[in-house]
Amino acid sequence: MAVRVPKGFLVAGVHCGLKRDLRKPDLTLIVSETPAVAVGVYTQNLVYAAPVALDRQRTPSDRIRVVVANSGNANACTGERGLRDAQEMARLAAEAVGAEEDQALVLSTGVIGHYMPMEKIAHGVKLAAAQLGSDEQALISAARGMMTTDTVYKLAGRTVSLRRREIQITGMVKGAAMMGPNLATMLGVILTDAGLDIPSAQAMLRAAVADSFNCINVDGHMSTNDTVLLLANGSAGSGLLSGADLASFGQTLNDLCAELARMIPADGEGASHLITIEVTGCKSREDALQIARTIANSPLVKTAITGADPNWGRIVSAAGYAGVLFDPAGVSLYLNGTMLYQGGTPVDFDAQAVSESIRTNRDTHIQLQLSEGSASGRFWTTDLTAEYVRLNADYHT
Amino acid sequence: MAVRVPKGFLVAGVHCGLKRDLRKPDLTLIVSETPAVAVGVYTQNLVYAAPVALDRQRTPSDRIRVVVANSGNANACTGERGLRDAQEMARLAAEAVGAEEDQALVLSTGVIGHYMPMEKIAHGVKLAAAQLGSDEQALISAARGMMTTDTVYKLAGRTVSLRRREIQITGMVKGAAMMGPNLATMLGVILTDAGLDIPSAQAMLRAAVADSFNCINVDGHMSTNDTVLLLANGSAGSGLLSGADLASFGQTLNDLCAELARMIPADGEGASHLITIEVTGCKSREDALQIARTIANSPLVKTAITGADPNWGRIVSAAGYAGVLFDPAGVSLYLNGTMLYQGGTPVDFDAQAVSESIRTNRDTHIQLQLSEGSASGRFWTTDLTAEYVRLNADYHT
Repeated sequence: MAVRVPKGFLVAGVHCGLKRDLRKPDLTLIVSETPAVAVGVYTQNLVYAAPVALDRQRTPSDRIRVVVANSGNANACTGERGLRDAQEMARLAAEAVGAEEDQALVLSTGVIGHYMPMEKIAHGVKLAAAQLGSDEQALISAARGMMTTDTVYKLAGRTVSLRRREIQITGMVKGAAMMGPNLATMLGVILTDAGLDIPSAQAMLRAAVADSFNCINVDGHMSTNDTVLLLANGSAGSGLLSGADLASFGQTLNDLCAELARMIPADGEGASHLITIEVTGCKSREDALQIARTIANSPLVKTAITGADPNWGRIVSAAGYAGVLFDPAGVSLYLNGTMLYQGGTPVDFDAQAVSESIRTNRDTHIQLQLSEGSASGRFWTTDLTAEYVRLNADYHT
Repeated sequence: MAVRVPKGFLVAGVHCGLKRDLRKPDLTLIVSETPAVAVGVYTQNLVYAAPVALDRQRTPSDRIRVVVANSGNANACTGERGLRDAQEMARLAAEAVGAEEDQALVLSTGVIGHYMPMEKIAHGVKLAAAQLGSDEQALISAARGMMTTDTVYKLAGRTVSLRRREIQITGMVKGAAMMGPNLATMLGVILTDAGLDIPSAQAMLRAAVADSFNCINVDGHMSTNDTVLLLANGSAGSGLLSGADLASFGQTLNDLCAELARMIPADGEGASHLITIEVTGCKSREDALQIARTIANSPLVKTAITGADPNWGRIVSAAGYAGVLFDPAGVSLYLNGTMLYQGGTPVDFDAQAVSESIRTNRDTHIQLQLSEGSASGRFWTTDLTAEYVRLNADYHT
């Protein structure tokens, strides 16, 4: 679980005035000393932010040198001016580290529909360029620079030995809210010093995202800014990975993304529970995920967990409107390991004990078993609390 | 807007111990003195309650005499025993009013997954049969007998003159929560003394529901019990309506259902705002409704209204993930009549004034204009408050 900056990368996170609190970094700079392969996976929202438009255009690439990320302003719904601002952010970042203009990518998160305060950005980029480093403190500052309502920074890493080289993969993400299906809303940057070609990098990132960031949500609202980038600069000296080495790298990437993904609902806005929903016995993985996602999106299921109420009726009825055909008489349900429901009817269970197990654990485990096949899927979400409402009714940075 | 019991019907609402509060009716009996045409529209949830199974089997019909409805227990997810209980409820109600067993329909709402306390039901049916009446007080008690977390009873009526007869249409509904698309979750009974044949009644009810109860939600959770029944007993002496008379009746039914539907989110659990979402300029009505529904389902849009925040970014971005293709550069948005957004970019507006207009009005009007065509759709929903969370985290009657 080694979390460190991979070879050949330098990072920094600084405060430049986008957030009010002076102690909170709001601009992150990530630099690769040599041109890196960069691939991205982006929001499916028709209304996407300017940085998404820019990154989509510039990836996949084999010559990216710098990523500039900011929190406090999403640069979304800002029209032509927003696009120019994103381009200018990229230009400033490239200039600050001696790269070419089109070697830079941009990530933004925060309030939608406000123009980017470019003077602050220009100041922040300079500040960050002067503080680039590869130690733990620099990495934490970089992760914190992307945070909005996140209460903790989110970093994870893996070290693997491939071709007799020590290869590092390190990811930083931000999440917390405005998350939904089709790329759960978030920003993520994964850095590796492995050598990857563009097609392999793109395929592996897509696969890893499908099983991780696309299986989480907080409120089902798909963001305008969702982006996950993977940068591979080859500095570990392994050469381009292929065959079994590439597969092994892919497995590690999946594992890392799952860990990072789970951190997001675990820190969901106002959440008091991380809910893992496992649906088994389905005809296909898509069916299982569709049912799990529908359960995860139900405010009635979420509030039941908030209230430590083993309300299997809400869970089973949510499955029933997922749009997947199944036999209700073949359904069983377990909550935190206790069977609540079997074959379409309730079973006797110690409601007090199950309620207690919900109340005293931050993790809640819902397992729904169908009898349609052998495919399964897993989804993570949060409960819904009065605190979530308070945070989102009063949201302004 | 005459609200009275149509000719040839008798109604009652009584307390029989399903709810704790002795002052709250929890069982409703509706009796037609002569066999009535009865048609229904039901939940699309795969997991549907026993009363839905029973009513689906018995409608359409031209010989229904009695409807028994209860709150406090939904008789859902109760398996074979639940089905037997629903049948027994029907039998008890039929017996109490001298009808045949299969001339009765059943409606239940309340907690899911508990067996129906049949002794209380038996007692309640007897009590109600002894109190049947056609005055305003009986009608209000009947409407109250279906209420769960509703804070007000929901009744509306229309009187129309057709074929030189005065025809009455009166509806009662309950709603409040666990509402979603595909029949917004609710119970509804519409009574008329008009004469209708089965095909006309069924077609008119479907059309009226599509434009009313299917265009509302509170939390997007589709219930196991959603049912709207229309009973027509012909007691007004008009004979079977046809031609222009039938069309006129249908128009009145649409209008009545829209009024009843709007009452439901207006009384949504913990709601502080009724939000009307109007989407215009679409290729089809389906597109417009899909976008309106997606906006209505976003917790971020709902909480913005709760907080009186004219956050058009959340609204426009919700439209963007509705799954309907449109040009984001052709989008304009009005909130309570003020333009916030035009052609893909924000416009200058007095945020304080718009915020004030949200804060000081219970009704909020969101109008999203696309530039794809000339179809439009309208959807009603509520905001999302800490009170909603409190109600649903602690829900037990």
